[in-house]
Amino acid sequence: MQQEGLLIVISAPSGAGKTTLCNGLVSRFPALKESVSYTTRQPRPGEQDGVDYHFVSIERFKQMIAENGFAEWAEVHGNFYGTAIATLEQARIDGIDILLDIDCQGARILKDRGINGLFVFVLPPSMAELRRRLESRSSDAREVIERRIERATEEIREARWYDYIVVNDRLDEAHEALASLVTAARHTTARMLGQVSKMFDL
Amino acid sequence: MQQEGLLIVISAPSGAGKTTLCNGLVSRFPALKESVSYTTRQPRPGEQDGVDYHFVSIERFKQMIAENGFAEWAEVHGNFYGTAIATLEQARIDGIDILLDIDCQGARILKDRGINGLFVFVLPPSMAELRRRLESRSSDAREVIERRIERATEEIREARWYDYIVVNDRLDEAHEALASLVTAARHTTARMLGQVSKMFDL
Repeated sequence: MQQEGLLIVISAPSGAGKTTLCNGLVSRFPALKESVSYTTRQPRPGEQDGVDYHFVSIERFKQMIAENGFAEWAEVHGNFYGTAIATLEQARIDGIDILLDIDCQGARILKDRGINGLFVFVLPPSMAELRRRLESRSSDAREVIERRIERATEEIREARWYDYIVVNDRLDEAHEALASLVTAARHTTARMLGQVSKMFDL
Repeated sequence: MQQEGLLIVISAPSGAGKTTLCNGLVSRFPALKESVSYTTRQPRPGEQDGVDYHFVSIERFKQMIAENGFAEWAEVHGNFYGTAIATLEQARIDGIDILLDIDCQGARILKDRGINGLFVFVLPPSMAELRRRLESRSSDAREVIERRIERATEEIREARWYDYIVVNDRLDEAHEALASLVTAARHTTARMLGQVSKMFDL
């Protein structure tokens, strides 16, 4: 029996260091893939349908929205982008581990649909540190930063329903913790039984 | 709110390499302690009551057996040894992480009593390899080895109700997997919330 693919869902407020942590995770676990999104924009030279994106028409995209087919979707400069729930389900069946960097709202949709996954929330060490990071890295107006902090405060409240919380204080420790979550998830009895049951007559 | 102590319960058939793995885990996580057992034997010079063992009378020990106070106990050369469930519960309350190397029967008692813990079963890579290890490391009679293998076969069937399974094929990978389980267990939302809830108004 092939082992099912694992879905790792990571959310964090802006400034918590999620992108750095996700990149670290992918380089540590080369088998971990990012899911292929749907988009309505035109393919650029070299981009392949089904590899870089699933390229679809606006009509098809809107139909998928209507059918609740997306865990998340957004419109950016007139083009639509979205992560289809079916993509995640297919990866699971195909035994492909997927890393999904997604906001709380999208994560909640997956959770509510009973999608099996490892839900991880990354926290900054404190609100003061989050503010410091947001202020130091951007030349944004004070108002924009305040809005981000307000939004972060709201998002952080969602942490309580995630499976795991990682505080990104020291980056190496946060990397280690995230990697441990993936390794642990690969050793749950439910996942290991398929692999070892024949060998040991379990 | 102080974080509760974590109980890590590890079982494995003889020859799976459990002792080596447990030693590795303790040196990796110095905060991880082995639980203090009860015994009816006399203290040896330098041994302290409550540190090396809880030294009790045979009457007291038998009373604790009668009260189902032990997760496991055994008689060795006329002396009794046992792990009290109360010891594990106290460690949890005191925030002390405990590593408990215990057979399936004892682990099952803890599980059935609803003791919160991380239940890990260590498997050899195969029955053939288990046999090879048992034969190579001992000068025991063929019969004794056969009995061990028979017992191992029975114990391995219990793996299905543990939370995690680690196959000890390459020792470094098994070490890594075990360490990851401990790190992951320390990051569950239930455990992290106490630590971060004040900071973030969760």
